[in-house]
Amino acid sequence: MSDIQRHDSNARLSRIVVHTAVVYVAGVTATDRSGDAQAQTVDILAKIDGYLASVGTNKSRLLSVQIWLQDIDRDFAGLNAAWAAWVPADAMPTRATCEAKLAAADLRVEIIVTAAL
Amino acid sequence: MSDIQRHDSNARLSRIVVHTAVVYVAGVTATDRSGDAQAQTVDILAKIDGYLASVGTNKSRLLSVQIWLQDIDRDFAGLNAAWAAWVPADAMPTRATCEAKLAAADLRVEIIVTAAL
Amino acid sequence: MSDIQRHDSNARLSRIVVHTAVVYVAGVTATDRSGDAQAQTVDILAKIDGYLASVGTNKSRLLSVQIWLQDIDRDFAGLNAAWAAWVPADAMPTRATCEAKLAAADLRVEIIVTAAL
Repeated sequence: MSDIQRHDSNARLSRIVVHTAVVYVAGVTATDRSGDAQAQTVDILAKIDGYLASVGTNKSRLLSVQIWLQDIDRDFAGLNAAWAAWVPADAMPTRATCEAKLAAADLRVEIIVTAAL
Repeated sequence: MSDIQRHDSNARLSRIVVHTAVVYVAGVTATDRSGDAQAQTVDILAKIDGYLASVGTNKSRLLSVQIWLQDIDRDFAGLNAAWAAWVPADAMPTRATCEAKLAAADLRVEIIVTAAL
Repeated sequence: MSDIQRHDSNARLSRIVVHTAVVYVAGVTATDRSGDAQAQTVDILAKIDGYLASVGTNKSRLLSVQIWLQDIDRDFAGLNAAWAAWVPADAMPTRATCEAKLAAADLRVEIIVTAAL
C-alpha cells in the first residue's frame, strides 16, 4: 500500500489525502447554497465531519483551519456562530480567516482543514 | 545535516523546504506573464515539476494545493484546462481555489503545493 | 499526554498547535493597528517570535509562510522591509503573499506560519 492514501477523488482533486498521520481535506463549500453564511457553514462543517469520519478521525483532532468568506463584514458573525456551535472547546485548531471571491457567486464560505489521524 | 533542508533560497524565501518527508514549495507564478491563465498555469506547473524533481519527488506525490486567480470568472476555465492536462488521474491532491490580487498586475495565477518526498 | 498539544486557546481557536514535530500558528495580526504595513509587520513578527519560543522553537526553524495584505500595492514594500530585517538569511521558509480583506478595517497584514519543533 502506498504511504499516501487518496479518497473521494474526482477529475480535479481528492477530497481527502492522508500522509504520515496528517489528513488534508480539500476546500469545502456548501451543497445547499441558498442559505446565508451561517447556514452554509453548518452544511460545510457537517461535510467535514463526514470526510474526517471516513478516514477514522474527527473534529477533536483538527490541526489548522483556513476560512474564506465572500463578504467578511456580512459573513463573519454567521460563520462564527456556526463555528462556535461545532468546534470542541477543548480541542481548538489554529485558524485564519479572510475575504476571498470563490468559484461561484452563491458560495459565501469555503473552509480548508487539516487534521491528525 | 539539519532535519530541515532549504533549496533555491534568495533574500526573501526558499523555493523549497523539506522536513520529515514533506516538501513545501513557495507560491509559484509564471515566468512568462504575457499569456492568459491557461498559458501561465502551464508555465507554473512546469516550474513545479522542476522544483519537485530537484528534491527527488514528482507530481504523483502531491498532497495539497492552493490556487489564487486574479479574476476567477475569467481565469477558472483556463486554470482547469492546464491542470487537467497535468495532474495524474490516479494521484489527485486536495485543492482549494479562490480569487486574490497578486504581487504584480500581470500575474493571473499563483499556485502553492505541498508534496511527499 | 495527547499527541496533539494546543496552546493559548480561546473560544474560537488555539494560537499554537503542535503535532509530530510541526508547529502550526494561527493567523497573526498586529496588536497596535495604528501603524502602516511595516509597523504592523514588526509587531506581528515579534508576536510570532513569542509563540514559537513558547513551544521551544524559533524563527530559524520556519517551514512555510502565507501572508495576506490589505492593499498589496501599498503594503508590499513595508512588509518586505520588516520581513528582511527579521527572517534569518540562512533559514528562509517558503512564502506566498496575496491581497485579502481582513477581519477588521485597520488590519493591514496577517501572517500564517508553520515551523518545525
